[in-house]
Amino acid sequence: MGPGPSDMEESVYKALSQPIIGHLDPEFVKLMDEIKENLRYAFQTKNSLTFPVSAPGSAGMESCFVNLLEPNDEVLICINGVFGMRMLENAERVKAKPTVIEFPWGKPVDPKKVEAALKKNKKFKALAFVHAETSTGVQSDAKEICRIAQEHDVLSIMDCVTSLGGTPVLIDEWGVDAAYSGTQKCLSCVPGLSPVTFSDRAIQKIKSRKTKVQSWFLDLNLVMDYWDSKAKRSYHHTAPVNSLYALHHALTLLKGEGLENSWQRHQENHEYLRDGLVDIGFEYLVEENYRLPQLNAVFVPGNQDEAELRSRLLNDYNIEVGGGLGDFAGKIWRIGLMGGSCKKAKVDQLLVALRSNLKK
Amino acid sequence: MGPGPSDMEESVYKALSQPIIGHLDPEFVKLMDEIKENLRYAFQTKNSLTFPVSAPGSAGMESCFVNLLEPNDEVLICINGVFGMRMLENAERVKAKPTVIEFPWGKPVDPKKVEAALKKNKKFKALAFVHAETSTGVQSDAKEICRIAQEHDVLSIMDCVTSLGGTPVLIDEWGVDAAYSGTQKCLSCVPGLSPVTFSDRAIQKIKSRKTKVQSWFLDLNLVMDYWDSKAKRSYHHTAPVNSLYALHHALTLLKGEGLENSWQRHQENHEYLRDGLVDIGFEYLVEENYRLPQLNAVFVPGNQDEAELRSRLLNDYNIEVGGGLGDFAGKIWRIGLMGGSCKKAKVDQLLVALRSNLKK
Repeated sequence: MGPGPSDMEESVYKALSQPIIGHLDPEFVKLMDEIKENLRYAFQTKNSLTFPVSAPGSAGMESCFVNLLEPNDEVLICINGVFGMRMLENAERVKAKPTVIEFPWGKPVDPKKVEAALKKNKKFKALAFVHAETSTGVQSDAKEICRIAQEHDVLSIMDCVTSLGGTPVLIDEWGVDAAYSGTQKCLSCVPGLSPVTFSDRAIQKIKSRKTKVQSWFLDLNLVMDYWDSKAKRSYHHTAPVNSLYALHHALTLLKGEGLENSWQRHQENHEYLRDGLVDIGFEYLVEENYRLPQLNAVFVPGNQDEAELRSRLLNDYNIEVGGGLGDFAGKIWRIGLMGGSCKKAKVDQLLVALRSNLKK
Repeated sequence: MGPGPSDMEESVYKALSQPIIGHLDPEFVKLMDEIKENLRYAFQTKNSLTFPVSAPGSAGMESCFVNLLEPNDEVLICINGVFGMRMLENAERVKAKPTVIEFPWGKPVDPKKVEAALKKNKKFKALAFVHAETSTGVQSDAKEICRIAQEHDVLSIMDCVTSLGGTPVLIDEWGVDAAYSGTQKCLSCVPGLSPVTFSDRAIQKIKSRKTKVQSWFLDLNLVMDYWDSKAKRSYHHTAPVNSLYALHHALTLLKGEGLENSWQRHQENHEYLRDGLVDIGFEYLVEENYRLPQLNAVFVPGNQDEAELRSRLLNDYNIEVGGGLGDFAGKIWRIGLMGGSCKKAKVDQLLVALRSNLKK
């Protein structure tokens, strides 16, 4: 019940350990097509360029930045937590020209400030923001931010590592140009893959670049030919076959449950957990309207030794919760209710363990 | 029996599907330390910076280039197949100044030409070569090439994706400065990880860079802090936990067998396969002294339809062999005898299937 990896279903483990086949085997190619199709469902998009990068979410983030930005491109970076800061690092390393707008940790990105920044400077090629900040449990109004981006003809890059599958991520409806996620959060699959999706506008930018993408491994011009069934399926790298078996199955489970049902399950268990936590003295960091149901950032009651309590949960109850990052280290916990870890029984176990271990 | 992924032992599948735990869990940190220790054995090195990159071998290659080279650094690239060409791509994308020496596909890198190039131009900071070319099955004299590099005070970057575990890779004895491999070849583990190792000379170069590493995901200055048990183990990215379980076990198996025994097994089965293949009309691409036992590149007898024969092996016999790449497409096969796929019984199955399907 940390900020991920989340618990995986037995059947995902089973899929993971199916016998390995070649990454260019016709059977495997079929499985790749099904993964792409099911990722389109998860992302709610028709984007043809939708696939899992063969590396963790940080590489998915880098994939968006190295492909969509060229040296000297101006980019607006919205920072309200750890992952916005990482976006800035990425923008700097592609030698783009970043402008930062900062928001207090635990607060959402303010679309009005984004709009003002885009009005003030007409040169921005892209803007980047985190939909669901894993470091604070806050969610920003992605729909409004992407609408503003489109209005100003600026590409939008969205981090939805923690949101995908747990709360609405509507790529086409919102008009997101590039988004990346992870498999180990609400998809409840093994860590190590990063689902990404790119709009036609984004592809146009990639195809009309004047400079080569600085990463060979992440260059979408090359990766596209491997993942596109209409291309000649040229060899690029050896795909992580077994992890992809697991993702294929995890996506089938998500489709079986239905996205709306999954969103509702996350919301219900969040409310159940919230009532229990508030009852024993925990307080939420984030204002109610912007809370992520799947990531509960809460202040540990002041009279408790948070580190000791956290390791007691881990060692005596086999329950992992995440500590705070940055300024919140030692102050907040990050309790995940993601995918397979989002179950009423688990909430009960955590609350019982807390009730009998809190100092009076 | 293709050029990888190779067959995995049952117990590796079992390790792979052990219950997931957090990537910062103390138990997992212990496992990371054991992986590093066992990789040092596989690489025959004392290098402290030895760990698996959380992405495939191509990312391991990129990791060496983005960390060891800065813009305008001169680098000598030896090309004798597909992966040397990829090295050149990497050198160009970090904006280094590459000089290429080419050798015919199927021939080893000639150390004398390397020496002549280093004598002619004293500005080289690094040289890069492929120890075991997966595209042609040729092995180059890594010991001599690295000796020459050291003599000229040039860092050596070595691709040993296909050699590690199957034929001698002696990092310290040869004086290799940076090497990367893959898990899905002679280590017989899941694809998706790239073991790397860096010498103290290499680390010195990384720490004294004047420019930032262009990839955030692959920046060793950051990754070191996550993999180093003496550092405070700061969060970098979510490690591919289950794949690392599998690697941990696969390395334990290698240690159990013993490197020398593994090398001998690869050599013996190669000779057994070679005798059988030559007997039915196949011819080796590579001169005997430079053949990789684990990758047998052979010309298919001229009167056979290689594509049809290859798909018959796959569909009727469940045996995969690799086709040729580049100029050798449609002409050669690449038959892998790697790790778990390197067994006498498998050679027998292949030879029987071939004997009863070759056109007279």
